[in-house]
Amino acid sequence: MQTLGIGVIGVGRIGAMHARLLSGQVAGARVAALNDARPEAARALGDELGVRVADGTDELLAAAGVDAAAICSSTETHAPLIAAAAEAGKPIFCEKPVSHDLVEVDRALDAVARSGVPFQIGFNRRFDPAHQSVRDAVVSGEVGEPHLLRITSRDPYPPPQSYVRASGGIFLDMTIHDFDMARYVTGSEVVEVYARGAVRIDQSFADAGDVDTALVVLEHEDGCITTIDNSRQASYGYDQRVEVFGSGGMAASENPPRHTGVVRTAEGTRTPTLPDFFLERYVPSYIRQWEAFVGAVSRGEAPPVGVVDARAPLVIGLAAARSLHEGRPVRVEEVVAA
Amino acid sequence: MQTLGIGVIGVGRIGAMHARLLSGQVAGARVAALNDARPEAARALGDELGVRVADGTDELLAAAGVDAAAICSSTETHAPLIAAAAEAGKPIFCEKPVSHDLVEVDRALDAVARSGVPFQIGFNRRFDPAHQSVRDAVVSGEVGEPHLLRITSRDPYPPPQSYVRASGGIFLDMTIHDFDMARYVTGSEVVEVYARGAVRIDQSFADAGDVDTALVVLEHEDGCITTIDNSRQASYGYDQRVEVFGSGGMAASENPPRHTGVVRTAEGTRTPTLPDFFLERYVPSYIRQWEAFVGAVSRGEAPPVGVVDARAPLVIGLAAARSLHEGRPVRVEEVVAA
Amino acid sequence: MQTLGIGVIGVGRIGAMHARLLSGQVAGARVAALNDARPEAARALGDELGVRVADGTDELLAAAGVDAAAICSSTETHAPLIAAAAEAGKPIFCEKPVSHDLVEVDRALDAVARSGVPFQIGFNRRFDPAHQSVRDAVVSGEVGEPHLLRITSRDPYPPPQSYVRASGGIFLDMTIHDFDMARYVTGSEVVEVYARGAVRIDQSFADAGDVDTALVVLEHEDGCITTIDNSRQASYGYDQRVEVFGSGGMAASENPPRHTGVVRTAEGTRTPTLPDFFLERYVPSYIRQWEAFVGAVSRGEAPPVGVVDARAPLVIGLAAARSLHEGRPVRVEEVVAA
Amino acid sequence: MQTLGIGVIGVGRIGAMHARLLSGQVAGARVAALNDARPEAARALGDELGVRVADGTDELLAAAGVDAAAICSSTETHAPLIAAAAEAGKPIFCEKPVSHDLVEVDRALDAVARSGVPFQIGFNRRFDPAHQSVRDAVVSGEVGEPHLLRITSRDPYPPPQSYVRASGGIFLDMTIHDFDMARYVTGSEVVEVYARGAVRIDQSFADAGDVDTALVVLEHEDGCITTIDNSRQASYGYDQRVEVFGSGGMAASENPPRHTGVVRTAEGTRTPTLPDFFLERYVPSYIRQWEAFVGAVSRGEAPPVGVVDARAPLVIGLAAARSLHEGRPVRVEEVVAA
Repeated sequence: MQTLGIGVIGVGRIGAMHARLLSGQVAGARVAALNDARPEAARALGDELGVRVADGTDELLAAAGVDAAAICSSTETHAPLIAAAAEAGKPIFCEKPVSHDLVEVDRALDAVARSGVPFQIGFNRRFDPAHQSVRDAVVSGEVGEPHLLRITSRDPYPPPQSYVRASGGIFLDMTIHDFDMARYVTGSEVVEVYARGAVRIDQSFADAGDVDTALVVLEHEDGCITTIDNSRQASYGYDQRVEVFGSGGMAASENPPRHTGVVRTAEGTRTPTLPDFFLERYVPSYIRQWEAFVGAVSRGEAPPVGVVDARAPLVIGLAAARSLHEGRPVRVEEVVAA
Repeated sequence: MQTLGIGVIGVGRIGAMHARLLSGQVAGARVAALNDARPEAARALGDELGVRVADGTDELLAAAGVDAAAICSSTETHAPLIAAAAEAGKPIFCEKPVSHDLVEVDRALDAVARSGVPFQIGFNRRFDPAHQSVRDAVVSGEVGEPHLLRITSRDPYPPPQSYVRASGGIFLDMTIHDFDMARYVTGSEVVEVYARGAVRIDQSFADAGDVDTALVVLEHEDGCITTIDNSRQASYGYDQRVEVFGSGGMAASENPPRHTGVVRTAEGTRTPTLPDFFLERYVPSYIRQWEAFVGAVSRGEAPPVGVVDARAPLVIGLAAARSLHEGRPVRVEEVVAA
Repeated sequence: MQTLGIGVIGVGRIGAMHARLLSGQVAGARVAALNDARPEAARALGDELGVRVADGTDELLAAAGVDAAAICSSTETHAPLIAAAAEAGKPIFCEKPVSHDLVEVDRALDAVARSGVPFQIGFNRRFDPAHQSVRDAVVSGEVGEPHLLRITSRDPYPPPQSYVRASGGIFLDMTIHDFDMARYVTGSEVVEVYARGAVRIDQSFADAGDVDTALVVLEHEDGCITTIDNSRQASYGYDQRVEVFGSGGMAASENPPRHTGVVRTAEGTRTPTLPDFFLERYVPSYIRQWEAFVGAVSRGEAPPVGVVDARAPLVIGLAAARSLHEGRPVRVEEVVAA
Repeated sequence: MQTLGIGVIGVGRIGAMHARLLSGQVAGARVAALNDARPEAARALGDELGVRVADGTDELLAAAGVDAAAICSSTETHAPLIAAAAEAGKPIFCEKPVSHDLVEVDRALDAVARSGVPFQIGFNRRFDPAHQSVRDAVVSGEVGEPHLLRITSRDPYPPPQSYVRASGGIFLDMTIHDFDMARYVTGSEVVEVYARGAVRIDQSFADAGDVDTALVVLEHEDGCITTIDNSRQASYGYDQRVEVFGSGGMAASENPPRHTGVVRTAEGTRTPTLPDFFLERYVPSYIRQWEAFVGAVSRGEAPPVGVVDARAPLVIGLAAARSLHEGRPVRVEEVVAA
């Protein structure tokens, strides 16, 4: 079998991770070239992996052996790079989000639609086996019609202040994964959003016009009500849970402990804390995400998380920001109409 | 030691349970007399327990050996019985709620205040060891300042339609326990309520002007945000969980399984479902609730769950009903002012 | 329905527990009379429960309303009391063991057989829902043919030295429950025993010619191999587990925690320790044991844990003692033949 | 930092796994060359990893860039390859066991001792974080003096019959990991062994003079008693548990489920089965094993699992085989003296 040559654009933390996984742990794929706005970062990783470094994104997209593009650079570059890759006829994998600006998003996704290239957005959590088992229990009918969904998503420690300022706010940066999860698990679109938020961890979030603690209620088309709670700082580790309750039962993905050791003494029972962060928790999901992309492209099928899935969570996030600002529930169509 | 003689008023499901616990499993207490609007029910239980049956509540309150009153009759009788017991100078244990009508509540609680008799409201879940451990983790400072609280409270099957019609609605009947829990765990009053509800289980709830599925968001004075989710029908049993997240960690009370057996085969791992209902889950909390009442009365102290705790959750419940009706967050003071 | 009147002989720790359970928590039964070698103990409990105190065991067995006898006095009285109750034609519940002396055991059980009275031995753990679920998984065939069984049975703290000296040794006092469990779960008799033991907790066990830590390997008729480990002192509470492994899977009963609270901080995850001791862990099994006895007697059926079950674990215990003494595996028939 | 070049000898299932881990996931190491008795297997893996294939083990040991040898070929080649690598002055990592023949073992380990090269034997389970936490709880004193240790080690399905015939029997092939674990966790040598075994899964084990189900009791120098139970076929997956009980408490490593999803319905609670086999369960331990080797070699220290650890479990295994054959406990010194 021919392996799919991926050109990786952007080798910061997440891009480097993708490149390393593609080099050794994803069957049917290899890194064909890489590129970064910081040439020395690109060179270092290129040396480590034995991969050529392209001089600019145009050269990368045109390079021999580049069958598809992985867009992992900073968010504001995503939309133009999507357009460029689409024009070059390359299948696209893009880290989330496409953009913080809905007009930009629509322009980029239109370019994808016109070109007909396969497109996948990086909502890796859909590929986590535990979260997927929650979705499976809905699809199979085992838990019946979804009535209530709750998602807990708490980071172990906050990002640097510079990151926060460019992040688009907690709803577009962090909760967006949970908006996607709500759509994924229920299979139903969101029609209304009510958001609460507070600064409880660090005043710098307030300075950036953001919150660090959030609670969002979603109403879905099918009547399911979702609650999402977020914190930028959970002292006990990376807390990632999804639970659906339906007419036939419930399904949940629990947190894995760091290891399965346990100590019992007169003082009580002690088990480890939670994983440090997403690299510890979600590596299998990143690998399975790539396998899904490679498989879809090689079979000529549409990748499993496409254009609609790239756009919808962004709209929900914009509605959440408006709800928090105005102190009232906001219909998603209010944003769509904007 | 002298045991405290309790006069039990109302021996329906919950009153009979209290009487049986007081007869054999609560140190320092005994049933001195009992009474019910249905004389044959009173007689049957009186025979079973070897306890005299009083002919009317006045006779019961005046009877020799009745040191305190347990008001377990139907909700609309609570307020007048509280007034009567207060006038008779008897310490009062009253099942929740005092009334669905805030004016009635205030009248009854005023009578208690004027008489100075000890008063305890039956929020038994505060005495559940697991829920209490969540509260303890807040009080001790172990989890730091509370940022987020979430409460899941789902019944295994709905009550009869006749019960629903007289229940005051899901927020006053079922969620009221959760409103109390939110105040208990955080130690902070609620200032704003946002409620969503739906009829997902049985159309008869709609016919009664009620919902069977609910989601409530509370904002506390200290900034903590609580979410409560309720369902009248969880197919897998009685689901009762409380979880607080704070600046230092989190504490939760999980569901106990029916027993601790586990079976592993090639098909997966199987453990039992959850307890059938509150009698299976909460018996220890009912016993400990009585021990707290008996202890407080015998030491001349105020019982641990008093007049303020009887009133506040009712106000929150009324605010929730208004929020659901009006589709907007409601300040608790809007209800207080009413 | 007529309730079964039980005459309780011996109201020490275990007898008083039985009397209290029979007074309030066992449907279809009541305490008809009680008796103890220490008259003041009998009187105190009689007053508490409102039950007449018989002057001697003969009077108790002859008393009006005594339909059955519960023999809960000290071990050396069991055999003669069984004979007396059998002669009196009363159904018998007897605490384990019948005797430490096999000749005495056989004499007592012969008396039962001749009289034809129903007889049940107090192996309450068979009625624990979790342990029972392990047995059920064998009986239903879900785990296939049993290959390996392991039983952990560790007390939280050792008994007083006086008790140890009269206990018959760890195998007849403590492990005997586990020998019964091994027969119960597998449904197969034991043919060979290999025992190891050590004094690790308190030198007084050595002084009494006993051990406080033991490991026993049993070979069953059907080829299953059972291991039992015992300690007289587990600092973290009462540790009681049973696990069967078979050709189709495995089934286990795990320890319940004291409650279901959990705390997560940066230091790790903390849950409660195990139950304090048998009164905390096994009350439901004691109630269900009585329900089984009362049900069998009232239906005229043989109780579920009878004469054979009273004798077999004692023989295994004697073989274990010999194995420990002689440092070799001992065939059970060596004891039977003795 | 200079990376350590490893020459991998033998690229069957386990050798290929080592080579792949060394290529991408072990910091400070790389595969410098590889070799296999089946040239096409060596060539295929060499192509995949971009690594040169040596023509014979002598060439491999002499090749430029080979700083250390990983001996992963079939067991009967281990002893001569250890001698050759020692003579070549190369640090040695060797898969277990060194040999089934104690004379061969001693000859090989003597060669290591004379040459002074670093030597590590592949008992990877010592590097599993959960098992290590059990050992840590002993070393730190948290669980006090070890009294009882129990190890469960059950494979999901049996190896091919050809493998069984060359395996040296269950004690040298499978239980040997558990013998090492018993020494590792307790930190105390084994002085006596009692073994039971049976053929319960497949008659072909009997044909090969082997058993497929085993129970071994070890007595340690410090008085701790260890039990190990093994099965060649656990229908529910790879079952790997270690539990130590001591004067201060207990510590255990539990099985991880395949993922952390859970489904609750009226039928019960369902979670996934156990990992498929060692590649799914133990990859992190293999990586940490290599990190320990690379770290020790680069710091000029003795690797953490050395010559003594390579020899002792083999002696225990030989004693177990004798115990099973003779039906009696066997002193380890009986084998040492042989």
